[in-house]
Amino acid sequence: MLHSCYGVNAEGHLTLGGLDTVKLAKEYGTPLYLLDTDHVRAMCRMYKKSFAAAFGSASAPVYAGKALCCTRIYRIMAEEGLYADCVSPGEILTARHAGFPMSDVFFHGNNKTDEDLRTALSLGVGHIVVDSMDELDALEDLAAAMNVTAKILLRITPGIDPHTHRKIITGNVDSKFGSAIVTGAAEAILCAAMRKPHLVLDGLHCHIGSQIFEIEPFADAADIMTGFIARMRQAHGYAGTILNLGGGFGVRYTEDDPTIDYPSYVCALGKELDQRCERYRIERPTILMEPGRSLVAAAGVTLYTVGSVKEIPGFRNYVSIDGGMPDNPRYTLYQSRYTVLHAEHADAAPDFPCTVAGRCCESGDLIAENVSVVRPRRGDILAVLVTGAYNYSMASHYNRIPKPPVIEISEGKATVAVRRERWEDLYALDEVPPDTASEEVSP
Amino acid sequence: MLHSCYGVNAEGHLTLGGLDTVKLAKEYGTPLYLLDTDHVRAMCRMYKKSFAAAFGSASAPVYAGKALCCTRIYRIMAEEGLYADCVSPGEILTARHAGFPMSDVFFHGNNKTDEDLRTALSLGVGHIVVDSMDELDALEDLAAAMNVTAKILLRITPGIDPHTHRKIITGNVDSKFGSAIVTGAAEAILCAAMRKPHLVLDGLHCHIGSQIFEIEPFADAADIMTGFIARMRQAHGYAGTILNLGGGFGVRYTEDDPTIDYPSYVCALGKELDQRCERYRIERPTILMEPGRSLVAAAGVTLYTVGSVKEIPGFRNYVSIDGGMPDNPRYTLYQSRYTVLHAEHADAAPDFPCTVAGRCCESGDLIAENVSVVRPRRGDILAVLVTGAYNYSMASHYNRIPKPPVIEISEGKATVAVRRERWEDLYALDEVPPDTASEEVSP
Repeated sequence: MLHSCYGVNAEGHLTLGGLDTVKLAKEYGTPLYLLDTDHVRAMCRMYKKSFAAAFGSASAPVYAGKALCCTRIYRIMAEEGLYADCVSPGEILTARHAGFPMSDVFFHGNNKTDEDLRTALSLGVGHIVVDSMDELDALEDLAAAMNVTAKILLRITPGIDPHTHRKIITGNVDSKFGSAIVTGAAEAILCAAMRKPHLVLDGLHCHIGSQIFEIEPFADAADIMTGFIARMRQAHGYAGTILNLGGGFGVRYTEDDPTIDYPSYVCALGKELDQRCERYRIERPTILMEPGRSLVAAAGVTLYTVGSVKEIPGFRNYVSIDGGMPDNPRYTLYQSRYTVLHAEHADAAPDFPCTVAGRCCESGDLIAENVSVVRPRRGDILAVLVTGAYNYSMASHYNRIPKPPVIEISEGKATVAVRRERWEDLYALDEVPPDTASEEVSP
Repeated sequence: MLHSCYGVNAEGHLTLGGLDTVKLAKEYGTPLYLLDTDHVRAMCRMYKKSFAAAFGSASAPVYAGKALCCTRIYRIMAEEGLYADCVSPGEILTARHAGFPMSDVFFHGNNKTDEDLRTALSLGVGHIVVDSMDELDALEDLAAAMNVTAKILLRITPGIDPHTHRKIITGNVDSKFGSAIVTGAAEAILCAAMRKPHLVLDGLHCHIGSQIFEIEPFADAADIMTGFIARMRQAHGYAGTILNLGGGFGVRYTEDDPTIDYPSYVCALGKELDQRCERYRIERPTILMEPGRSLVAAAGVTLYTVGSVKEIPGFRNYVSIDGGMPDNPRYTLYQSRYTVLHAEHADAAPDFPCTVAGRCCESGDLIAENVSVVRPRRGDILAVLVTGAYNYSMASHYNRIPKPPVIEISEGKATVAVRRERWEDLYALDEVPPDTASEEVSP
């Protein structure tokens, strides 16, 4: 199947990490997020080993927590010895709640408020990745006021279009992120950072995009960044030792996507990088990269119960499920393609072309169009594969639908990593006069 | 300004319901949702009066709570004597929490689970709007098992394209919603419903789309639906008395949008409807319609604090704010246009063309492109107008960002309708072994 964590058992049911997904659906209810953390750990170890081989022992993967953020996942990342890329105090505090070492956190984002920066400084966050001149000035002032020194990286925009979806291109010059090299902004912020008495400029960061299946965009980024480092060394005595090349490793969502041999990919990038360092005559920096999606996506499966099957002659068939854009907005946002299976007949040939529609009162709430599944009936379990990334973390309460739980699967056992939201959780923050609550009123 | 609830005070600050938004931002922090409920109540009364005048005294507006769902708003709708359109048990239970009469609730949705239907039946929800044959059968079985009778409407697809954004077109035949007239599905489900002993078919429902500025699509829907009613009366003795024509009244988001005179609009529709009833020789049904957006959108303003201003010569200027797609995903989802103002200089001429970017680590996280504002600096307050609908209700925790509070403004006073989420709320559902929580671990 699509990834090694998926299988089919004797009953024809889809398995994840060896466990019967249909049984899990009956036990925990649907919609249900499953996460095979043995698969996550295997990916962590693969990246750690590949990075060490390709970039040297000081290199390490940095988990981009925005892909999947909950206490349990940071605990696993801590145990596996990864760094963490956090993009908000919410992510930082979740990592802290998990016992993740604050010194191993990189704090990202194009807009960190004063309160965010104060939180990061007081918690001893390892590095703050400064995005703009405004932030640089604010951080210096705050660090001075708190009488601390902050280690920083600078987010640099190398100006590379990795030819992916427009909305998830972040390395272009025309970007809300970072300081572009070609406009001179990168040099300006680097010089400004070096003059800040409470900031230590440890290195540079760039991020070129998402779902990148080729080596070239990364090699281009490495080329541009090492060239920039060399010029800044010469012109300004820049002495930073870290080069963080960001994330963006592609993930296979459907059979049409290419298979990636991540170790070979990382190895090839290591060689490209060594060539650049030699060409520009700089010592090889400590290379960091930020896998997020590729660490957790494949390990995730979402289970749904079918509510209706509607055939519209001359148009198409709709299969409605009990989740949708609230738990997975990626089709609505990006028309992202997914693999959908009848979890109870996972090895049977799909015979029913359909659109899988979410339950929200919104026409755009679809999970997949033009897919084929074994014809389901109300009450059957459908599985959507490769949902470990950007599903739970992007979930909303649209249509006042509670968030599904996250069930961890490891060593043949299932445990609750995030519990299911209850109805009363939905209005827990609502203020209501106590004398009126839960009593019907007449107009 | 765009709507009557907005103003500018002597200091040049934007006001909502007469209150200084800049002061509110300082008092409650940002991002901040404001909601002028006096404006909401005025819209409720306008619709009630217009409906009674156009459709007769039995007619009433049905609040489509998916636009903005919280306890406070249902309380207001109850006080104003509106019905409620709820699309999930979460909405129903929030309405109940507010003391909203369950008998005045219409329960919608293309996928209601058995549990949902049981909840609705046991709470005594007024009407269930049955979407499909699968649901009809399930509801009959459940009602029989519970030994109750359920009043229902049937969702019918009239097959009208109101020429709005593709994603929010719901009246077309190719739709996940309802049963189409042209395919014969509507007649089939009507006949099936009439034969169900535990269901009482009180009427029909249709919904043609959103952000409709013309009368024609509604008149077309009324024509198709009354014609269908007439045929069903004759052919099958269908005796339902309710015709719910759904929602979709347009709202002015920017100066480029047309102004709508809602009372005239409703009045014109009433005349069209009367003509149709006469033509098809049926008694005028009890007409219901479901305004949601148009009741609450204009009453809402979101306030943000600017974090950075980035000028990229030859490209564009980015103004980064401390919110974004987690609190307002509508630009990312639909490229919806908004009016953005510098809240501290609300009457000054805008001089700074820019893109307003959210704080998420995602390039697509923008709130507005190609707008012009008075040039802001880090720490300044920006206001996005007309955010009362589909902002709070669509909010996510993407990037682990807490949801902003909803502050009600009424009679010159501000009160908290929904409190701000705290950091610890973000991981309140996370399961973590108690001996490891909040203690750092070493890999």
